[in-house]
Amino acid sequence: MASQKIKTATTIHERVIMGVDPGTTIMGYGIIKATGNRAELLVVGVIDLRKISDHYLKLQYIFERVTQLIEGYHPDELAIEAPFYGKNVQSMLKLGRAQGTAIAAALAHNIAITEYAPRKIKLAITGQGAASKEQVAAVLQKLLHLKEMPKNLDATDGLAAAMCHFFQSNRPASQSDFKSWKDFIGKNPGRVK
Amino acid sequence: MASQKIKTATTIHERVIMGVDPGTTIMGYGIIKATGNRAELLVVGVIDLRKISDHYLKLQYIFERVTQLIEGYHPDELAIEAPFYGKNVQSMLKLGRAQGTAIAAALAHNIAITEYAPRKIKLAITGQGAASKEQVAAVLQKLLHLKEMPKNLDATDGLAAAMCHFFQSNRPASQSDFKSWKDFIGKNPGRVK
Repeated sequence: MASQKIKTATTIHERVIMGVDPGTTIMGYGIIKATGNRAELLVVGVIDLRKISDHYLKLQYIFERVTQLIEGYHPDELAIEAPFYGKNVQSMLKLGRAQGTAIAAALAHNIAITEYAPRKIKLAITGQGAASKEQVAAVLQKLLHLKEMPKNLDATDGLAAAMCHFFQSNRPASQSDFKSWKDFIGKNPGRVK
Repeated sequence: MASQKIKTATTIHERVIMGVDPGTTIMGYGIIKATGNRAELLVVGVIDLRKISDHYLKLQYIFERVTQLIEGYHPDELAIEAPFYGKNVQSMLKLGRAQGTAIAAALAHNIAITEYAPRKIKLAITGQGAASKEQVAAVLQKLLHLKEMPKNLDATDGLAAAMCHFFQSNRPASQSDFKSWKDFIGKNPGRVK
């Protein structure tokens, strides 16, 4: 089984990409299977944090759900939608913790992480950096040949991050070609002590 | 072995407290064993992140080292020194990610977390909220009967967080008496969905 999977991967370069939009109230996610130049939807949804008031229980729920998704779908790579600015320092600390918790779940499984600014994701999907969530959802539906899209547009943000990474990393010899942290460290011995 | 440990815990309330000061360049930590009203040092040190330039490798290193400490010393509780304000949103996002990664390592082991503002920690240790790092280190040395203290004062910040939690939680019927997240959730069914 294992050797067959490796054989497949080397011939048609199959990989699973997970995308997340890690917010502090709703965390959208989407997972796709990329086979060469083709992408196929595996799952799309949201982790709803609104009903949990305790900050740590929120973080624990993020860690558990992201871990469940990773162990259920075995993504090779994680793409994160990550804004680098915010309203105030207090909200950024909370956002950073939510992101750090999701990132830790991926790091614990040796999954390579790439982050993209929201504008970059919209640009990669629709060709317009200022596209609306509805426009992004419409293009994703077309690209992935889906009959219907989730009603919650936060879910499509996570899926958009995964598709953005698929487009970006589907070019030869990019940094995103590292399959895991072990692979990355192996190929970049000077970058880690 | 296991039943003996439980017996000891119920009679003299023995528990291990880990304290961390999660920064983005140096992360100080200290672990103490609390037996009733007595505290004993198990380990104190720093996780030095200055030599790692890559942001994700830094986070991965934090996650791995905190996990190693948890699996080596089996703390029951984690105390975090956590400022709620910072210079700018960019540095707060990075700090939040570093904190979130350390927090996730604890959550993955069902360890209860309590955070304390730096001023509160200094106040609990020295009686003065504006005490210097040197003053905090001197009091810790006396409290724990240590022959010498680590030269790096960042290490004592983590230890100070653990000692602060020990003082705070050594009072009856406080929220900190929950032994783990499972315990917390069991006693607070309405706080988690």
